[in-house]
Amino acid sequence: MAGRIVTSVEVARRAGVSRSAVSRCFTPGASIAPETRDRVMKAAKALGYRPNAIARSLIAGRSRMIAVVIGYMENQFYPALLDRLARDLQDLGYRLLLFTGAPEGPSDALFAEILGYRVDGMILASTLLSSALADECRAAGVPVVLVNRTTDSADVSSVVADNRTGARAVAEFLLAAGHRRFGYVAGIASSSTNQDRETAFRERLAEAGIDTLLREDGGYTQQGARDATLRLLTRPDRPDAIFCANDHMAIAAMDAARVELGLRVPDDVSIVGYDDVGPASWPSYALTTVEQPVEAMVSAAVETLMARIAGEGAPERTVRIPGELVVRGSARRPVEGVTAVGGREIWRPQSLPRSAS
Amino acid sequence: MAGRIVTSVEVARRAGVSRSAVSRCFTPGASIAPETRDRVMKAAKALGYRPNAIARSLIAGRSRMIAVVIGYMENQFYPALLDRLARDLQDLGYRLLLFTGAPEGPSDALFAEILGYRVDGMILASTLLSSALADECRAAGVPVVLVNRTTDSADVSSVVADNRTGARAVAEFLLAAGHRRFGYVAGIASSSTNQDRETAFRERLAEAGIDTLLREDGGYTQQGARDATLRLLTRPDRPDAIFCANDHMAIAAMDAARVELGLRVPDDVSIVGYDDVGPASWPSYALTTVEQPVEAMVSAAVETLMARIAGEGAPERTVRIPGELVVRGSARRPVEGVTAVGGREIWRPQSLPRSAS
Repeated sequence: MAGRIVTSVEVARRAGVSRSAVSRCFTPGASIAPETRDRVMKAAKALGYRPNAIARSLIAGRSRMIAVVIGYMENQFYPALLDRLARDLQDLGYRLLLFTGAPEGPSDALFAEILGYRVDGMILASTLLSSALADECRAAGVPVVLVNRTTDSADVSSVVADNRTGARAVAEFLLAAGHRRFGYVAGIASSSTNQDRETAFRERLAEAGIDTLLREDGGYTQQGARDATLRLLTRPDRPDAIFCANDHMAIAAMDAARVELGLRVPDDVSIVGYDDVGPASWPSYALTTVEQPVEAMVSAAVETLMARIAGEGAPERTVRIPGELVVRGSARRPVEGVTAVGGREIWRPQSLPRSAS
Repeated sequence: MAGRIVTSVEVARRAGVSRSAVSRCFTPGASIAPETRDRVMKAAKALGYRPNAIARSLIAGRSRMIAVVIGYMENQFYPALLDRLARDLQDLGYRLLLFTGAPEGPSDALFAEILGYRVDGMILASTLLSSALADECRAAGVPVVLVNRTTDSADVSSVVADNRTGARAVAEFLLAAGHRRFGYVAGIASSSTNQDRETAFRERLAEAGIDTLLREDGGYTQQGARDATLRLLTRPDRPDAIFCANDHMAIAAMDAARVELGLRVPDDVSIVGYDDVGPASWPSYALTTVEQPVEAMVSAAVETLMARIAGEGAPERTVRIPGELVVRGSARRPVEGVTAVGGREIWRPQSLPRSAS
């Protein structure tokens, strides 16, 4: 069968249906009776028919492809996000053209090529991508949505966790547990995720009268987080609570504290992360962390992108998705405020202490 | 700029170069002087030019797109594989069309759509995909390579770790450490990875005179592995060494043994995995495991696929990539045979004991 091009006419003849029925069968979202569909698929398979989606896209001016750019996969947040994105886009009849492997985003030449595929839209999902990329998309007339990253520009839509509220909750949780000496393991300083989490954490501590926050740079890598944690925990005035800007680093921080320094977590030091990735719930870590609700973030991103593709003229917007503080075993527990909800324990204080001093 | 189509002629005029220089600039692999390239890219950016890769692909009969089908992302082996695949394909000027989210592989309708994009080739990377899918690709004339999966069919190329040799090494390693009571936490029984690992492990134990292998099904999930491990370790004749068919399960097995049963690993029970995914080296697990060399496997898969796309008429082949047994702390160490190589400790016995009885 290989080599020869089978036409939709041949498929229609073999299936005993009209040519338009064959066409509808291969058009995402088109309506067709299940029985007709079965006959067409069987005939198409027997003949080795391949509907020419590319030719169709030229005619329709739409490729039904969405480019997804992801900086790196090591932090499990990104595979989880990608998995969900692929499902949601597939359900809508879109295909996912993946670009990865460059933490700072694709080069100019690669970017030109992405646009060359006439993608209908683009999702940029990384803390590390330059916001210039989003500007270039707009210049090229390609709708774009940032995920897990905001920019200062009001001209780009983005979907992020509500990082400020989440980081404030971490501060309140640790204060309520009686902590007074705090450390922060920072992610990449220029990323919006780090900026929002660090600023809100620091502000909430200041509201409680605590102006000292020992800060070390972890750069969103495990090696960086390990080194940062060792520096924090070997100081004479070492903190007894450390907030790491994401789980990927918090896991390395826990290992540095326990395995390398022989400290007990949380008895000697509380450690809290951000994201609630899969390994956070593994019993050896049982990490207390703020969830980034992947499913809700992806839904919002896809919905925002589709609205732009449909050209509804909606203004660009930033969507902030709230996430719970999930309480496990890596941080001391406050006496009150932890509630069991749907199989998890979460931090839901009745009244937030505005000041602990 | 959005909306109006900018032509290559306009770009050429603005850059002060020929139209063919513009074309070469956007053709992967084409030769062009760096200075010319810079001028073209600058002009293209200023004008919002998008080379029409889709139209080009129709003319050339090539889309330069490779479909990659991955069943699930939870096991970190797959994100690592995907990341590497994306890089390697990008380096060759190919784009990666991603399909994921269905452990058994895409439905017939989705599959027809994948083929509709006239992909130049397909990589099926999952233990769970049906081999019928590979047959359909062949029927449609699309070159396909399986990764981490073989089939009984001689008509499909595949790239796998040398699972039999790896599993034999695990048996030899555990025997050399003095173990005599063995458990096996199986992956999905129908997968070639599980079949090869289980058969070889069992055979090597039998050669040493050990015919009893306590087997429990973990189904390649962490929940399944936890339950399987609890069943194994609460038996009166519980094993003192457990081989898990992959790391994803071995991590859950370690947590079940240590956190739920209060056993010491490896003092009470040795646990060995397969894959050497990122978390295997996290100090809280320090998992002894057989590596699946992702980089080498991806290189072999891409090379095999490219040869088929080029139509070199090479016979379909199965490539088996050897991997080291990486010795960490989750299993008792034999007195001899562990050697430091390139920052890791690996199992390299001088002479393999053919029988321990």
